[in-house]
Amino acid sequence: AADTWRVHFGPSSAMAAVTSIMRAHQILLGQLDTLLRPHDLTFARYEALVLLTFSRTGSLALSRIGERLMVHPTSVTNTVDRLERAGLVRRVRNPDDGRGILAQITEKGREVVKRATDDLMAADFCLGMYGEPDLVHMFDLLRTIRVAAGDFPAPDETARSDA
Amino acid sequence: AADTWRVHFGPSSAMAAVTSIMRAHQILLGQLDTLLRPHDLTFARYEALVLLTFSRTGSLALSRIGERLMVHPTSVTNTVDRLERAGLVRRVRNPDDGRGILAQITEKGREVVKRATDDLMAADFCLGMYGEPDLVHMFDLLRTIRVAAGDFPAPDETARSDA
Repeated sequence: AADTWRVHFGPSSAMAAVTSIMRAHQILLGQLDTLLRPHDLTFARYEALVLLTFSRTGSLALSRIGERLMVHPTSVTNTVDRLERAGLVRRVRNPDDGRGILAQITEKGREVVKRATDDLMAADFCLGMYGEPDLVHMFDLLRTIRVAAGDFPAPDETARSDA
Repeated sequence: AADTWRVHFGPSSAMAAVTSIMRAHQILLGQLDTLLRPHDLTFARYEALVLLTFSRTGSLALSRIGERLMVHPTSVTNTVDRLERAGLVRRVRNPDDGRGILAQITEKGREVVKRATDDLMAADFCLGMYGEPDLVHMFDLLRTIRVAAGDFPAPDETARSDA
């Protein structure tokens, strides 16, 4: 039975693809965290800063950051705590929701994210072994599972769900 | 300057690809962990069990498990602790190295990994939205970064480094 299972299990393309995503993630995270250490950032904290940079007002509700980065509320709290202690974000009350808290990027935060991005760009985000077409293809392939999981809300959908 | 940077930063295919890998990983891990909960497994523990199943003797040094799954020694210790408490592996002394400890899969461990694999296969490892060619392509694309990071040691290389 073990042999039958092994024969059955061995050639699973889905398992191979899952394993590849897991391993690629671990490799990249380790390399990106190393690159970001001089900026006293991890990639998780860097991503939160980038998200704030790209928001219209430079601030987002903590719950929204969690949704967008698909991480647990506890992780968002830890991330924002660390960023706040480093003076890169501040917590402010949400003017549209008395109970809600926004994380707002500071000027120092904008400077740090710029310098960190320069370093990451110079290192090709640790993907320098790929040509442009492969990077685009990778994005396109992985887009399918992200769309299926509700990543990539259309801008007007976001507006509607916020209303 | 902010605009210049945004223009520069926006169209980075490498950043888009990195973000896709991070998000795909988080989506998959959440879904796989949910699927594995009835077996009292996480995907991390499941992967460790699978690795043991595929080893010749059903046992591997903890350091080797960490290398193969590219996780920190502390994580391996936690993983093996949890698996041992569930009766799925036992710790044994390495006969080739008096100081070393091996994790050895138990009969119960082999049964659980088989049942868990049946469930994961039935769910297409949460990648049912992809056809076979896309799965193969995904594996091939991600293989590049894994090879660059020293994943996929050739079998005879492993033997040599163990000697």
